[in-house]
Amino acid sequence: MWGIIATWRMALEGVSESAPQLAAGSAASTAVVDAVAAVEDFPFYKSVGYGGLPTENGEVELDAAFMDGDTLAFGAVGNLIDIANPVRVAQALSRQRYNSLLVGQGAREWALEQGFSDKAMLTERAMQHYRKRCRETLDKGLSPYDGHDTVGIIGLDKQGSMSVATSTSGLFMKKRGRIGDSPIMGSGFYCDSETGAATATGVGEDLMKGCTSYEIVRRMAGGMTPQQAADSVVFELEDKLMSRFGRVGDLSVVCMNRHGEFGAATNIKTFTFVVATEKQPLTVYLAERHREQTCYQPVDEAWMQAYAARIRAPIEE
Amino acid sequence: MWGIIATWRMALEGVSESAPQLAAGSAASTAVVDAVAAVEDFPFYKSVGYGGLPTENGEVELDAAFMDGDTLAFGAVGNLIDIANPVRVAQALSRQRYNSLLVGQGAREWALEQGFSDKAMLTERAMQHYRKRCRETLDKGLSPYDGHDTVGIIGLDKQGSMSVATSTSGLFMKKRGRIGDSPIMGSGFYCDSETGAATATGVGEDLMKGCTSYEIVRRMAGGMTPQQAADSVVFELEDKLMSRFGRVGDLSVVCMNRHGEFGAATNIKTFTFVVATEKQPLTVYLAERHREQTCYQPVDEAWMQAYAARIRAPIEE
Repeated sequence: MWGIIATWRMALEGVSESAPQLAAGSAASTAVVDAVAAVEDFPFYKSVGYGGLPTENGEVELDAAFMDGDTLAFGAVGNLIDIANPVRVAQALSRQRYNSLLVGQGAREWALEQGFSDKAMLTERAMQHYRKRCRETLDKGLSPYDGHDTVGIIGLDKQGSMSVATSTSGLFMKKRGRIGDSPIMGSGFYCDSETGAATATGVGEDLMKGCTSYEIVRRMAGGMTPQQAADSVVFELEDKLMSRFGRVGDLSVVCMNRHGEFGAATNIKTFTFVVATEKQPLTVYLAERHREQTCYQPVDEAWMQAYAARIRAPIEE
Repeated sequence: MWGIIATWRMALEGVSESAPQLAAGSAASTAVVDAVAAVEDFPFYKSVGYGGLPTENGEVELDAAFMDGDTLAFGAVGNLIDIANPVRVAQALSRQRYNSLLVGQGAREWALEQGFSDKAMLTERAMQHYRKRCRETLDKGLSPYDGHDTVGIIGLDKQGSMSVATSTSGLFMKKRGRIGDSPIMGSGFYCDSETGAATATGVGEDLMKGCTSYEIVRRMAGGMTPQQAADSVVFELEDKLMSRFGRVGDLSVVCMNRHGEFGAATNIKTFTFVVATEKQPLTVYLAERHREQTCYQPVDEAWMQAYAARIRAPIEE
């Protein structure tokens, strides 16, 4: 069996390239890192990598992680500035015995020492978004903190190894130095080849309160199907945060077990994910909550065309 | 019932001040933050706060966290430079809806904006340690990465609220920007007033692989005593990392449930912890592993005197 599952439609191009490689016997680690790197490189995805939205200071600070489910080794970067592919830095860090979570200037210095490319990651289009959001925040009182879609990709290879990788520019208009769940072990990602893997997207500050990805993997280890694990963790966390904390942000997850069975859960209306396995042709699903259960169906061609138009549409300034 | 438990002997002075306050009805949040701040302020503790050991670049980068077990709100800082009390910054961040985990320059800027004091945290004594370690690493081939004792303190107040706080200068000779488990939700700390809390110290890179503190709290919620939860999590993680990752670092934990019962576990020879509850007079325990179980007994006066002499002894250069 092989399989790959990813948060959000934006992962489609990367997953499209990695799925045939997994089918041909490639390693899960390579498949997920290459797929995430493809998302990082695509300039029209405004929440990941090149073209990602800046902090409130106008700088693009990127977070990424990689975890090897065979060894449990992981590497992660936070607030990395102007390095082309944060996910590749994270993978390189996973091979270090110590210092595998590096942030800020230290992460950048290490990446440059290791030969990773310096690249200006702030685009004119991202700055247009930034200026528009500044105006909306002032004029209409909209929350500045909207738009924080992390790409998280899980792979299972024919050898039975699993890996997960994440990448994000984080909460739009975040403060300098803010880290969300994406580079945080157990919250934004977790992977154990003997069980499965999970990855999350949404409000990192809330996803961390439940160690969301770790808990999903743990429930799969305890016998739940991926879908049961995903739904139960998301909706229990939502209930708990509403009763204890008084509010809750967006929480969305995908997961896959070592048999290539997958699950997805969300507490919002428009969560998309991409999946392909030996049994399941490459599909983009649109997930929606129905009470305490997540339902999903393939998107249609009209949805795909509207998406393609929307991400490239001129930004009204 | 009230109670307080902390990693390492170094917490004794802070715990001594906070325990009577908890007995008198003070809030757990205040008790743990004040106790951690006392450790941060003490210049002879070389792994926390003022006097903490520097990174390989010779700078002191501090990590700290605070979690409120009633609301699950948390705040944390990583790689904070030259702010007097990182734990107080973490507590202030726990009151923010977003941006509650801040690192590096962004964390420092936020702390200064909020009125926290600028303070040069590198001491001459810490630099003596640094120079000695550089020599030992070169001359004797010793690992540079030895000495990474985090203070983590859990409090339970008479109102039934629990909190946890951590603070550390991190792995000695760490790379600039390295973050360990101490500011990482679920790994270095976790707290839920309906169940209990846990906090960890040791090699952060390994503690994170098991979401150690979260898993201990989860097992207490499932019915284990604190001691069973602590021992089972530490030794299972050790076994798992040995079989999957091929090596394992120091792993030590303390935990307390909402009834004030406590537990401690370690895979090393010389882990100390400090505890006081309504039923248990203030005691410093020395914990040791015996196969897959941790045993502990109070330290004697000779141990205490040797400790006091050792931390103040001149550093041979």
